[in-house]
Amino acid sequence: MSVAEKLRQNPLFAGAGEEAIREVARVAVAYQYAPGEVLLTQDRGGELLHLLTSGAVRISRLGSGQLERTVSELYAPDLVGETALLLGGERSATVTATMPTTTLALHRPHLEVIARRDPTLLWNLASILAQRVCDLNDELIAAGHSTDAALVHVVSGLYAQRLKAGLADAHILPLGYAELMERMATSRETVSRSLKRFQTRGLLSMNDGRLHLLQPDALVAFDPEGD
Amino acid sequence: MSVAEKLRQNPLFAGAGEEAIREVARVAVAYQYAPGEVLLTQDRGGELLHLLTSGAVRISRLGSGQLERTVSELYAPDLVGETALLLGGERSATVTATMPTTTLALHRPHLEVIARRDPTLLWNLASILAQRVCDLNDELIAAGHSTDAALVHVVSGLYAQRLKAGLADAHILPLGYAELMERMATSRETVSRSLKRFQTRGLLSMNDGRLHLLQPDALVAFDPEGD
Repeated sequence: MSVAEKLRQNPLFAGAGEEAIREVARVAVAYQYAPGEVLLTQDRGGELLHLLTSGAVRISRLGSGQLERTVSELYAPDLVGETALLLGGERSATVTATMPTTTLALHRPHLEVIARRDPTLLWNLASILAQRVCDLNDELIAAGHSTDAALVHVVSGLYAQRLKAGLADAHILPLGYAELMERMATSRETVSRSLKRFQTRGLLSMNDGRLHLLQPDALVAFDPEGD
Repeated sequence: MSVAEKLRQNPLFAGAGEEAIREVARVAVAYQYAPGEVLLTQDRGGELLHLLTSGAVRISRLGSGQLERTVSELYAPDLVGETALLLGGERSATVTATMPTTTLALHRPHLEVIARRDPTLLWNLASILAQRVCDLNDELIAAGHSTDAALVHVVSGLYAQRLKAGLADAHILPLGYAELMERMATSRETVSRSLKRFQTRGLLSMNDGRLHLLQPDALVAFDPEGD
């Protein structure tokens, strides 16, 4: 696939003009990361915007009071690094590859010049962020409601992303106990009790540190109020 | 204050050109709301962007599984309504005035035309959303850690907004038990136990359904790991 074709798949360039895509293809720098390698480190400087062209990353943030949490996973095509680029200052989170991952990276001055000529990129960037705000609000609502609601939210979101990314094993999530505890900010016992309730219903099973969705549609539609 | 001066105070227009501000001032429609009046209703259509010029609003969202939560409060100058405008479709949340509130509202086609001429507006919009993503991540981290951490996050955020809005009583928050329960998605007993711990330290007191910050700086700096 050519660089221009990869760019065209990224939501940042949805509906963008040919000229903007050609210009970005000319200045973008290709990176590749093995699983576990770090793309961005929280509190370090940096103004590179990474467009994920293959693979996936985990985003973790150390909040006020030194509380850490995995805040999301993103699968290609998507983007990371927009926060420091927009707000200036340090990186707001640490981004780590969870599978072999490639990116095309842009420097802020390049993006500024190109976006001023084709503001579609900025509409798209604002839209991607508006969707993240919605998703985070839903995660906060689910987390405040119950462990089961939080689990359904995390699992459904990840499954939807893996489906969209076209993974053959979209229903087998790279979430073991440790990852669920970190993502849901709760104890092993609480995760375990919640998993057991879904296992009893035949919706989930945990094998080799991976969470298998046995009936993905039923899980996504699960109503935590229904019991 | 002229309409143009009000616009210039809004973060959407930081660094925007005179021409964009004049054009927005020409097409913006003025609204006013009494406390309790609804600006936007979740799941209704609508593409108005409201720039808050005075007052404050509460944003509540009904998440998947019909779980409701107050997700944030915003004080003028700020903006609401950008999600449906960017993502299309229905309103993602219900927005209610919590004090006498005035807005200047823009229709999407007007904003599109003006933003294409002055992309600064779109950089600003993306930046405002990136900041909200950071704040929501911190709220999720605090909520996952402990009730005390969640309380400090909610109270500090509201206090910072009220200070920035220039309110003389910035340290007296419009948060009674009901509001704290809704914002933190927890029971009266849990809120009560957490409040008592801060009251014992002389940091907070609850009077007439309002939360008084007795030592705001000490509360904002409170380390939930410190005990």
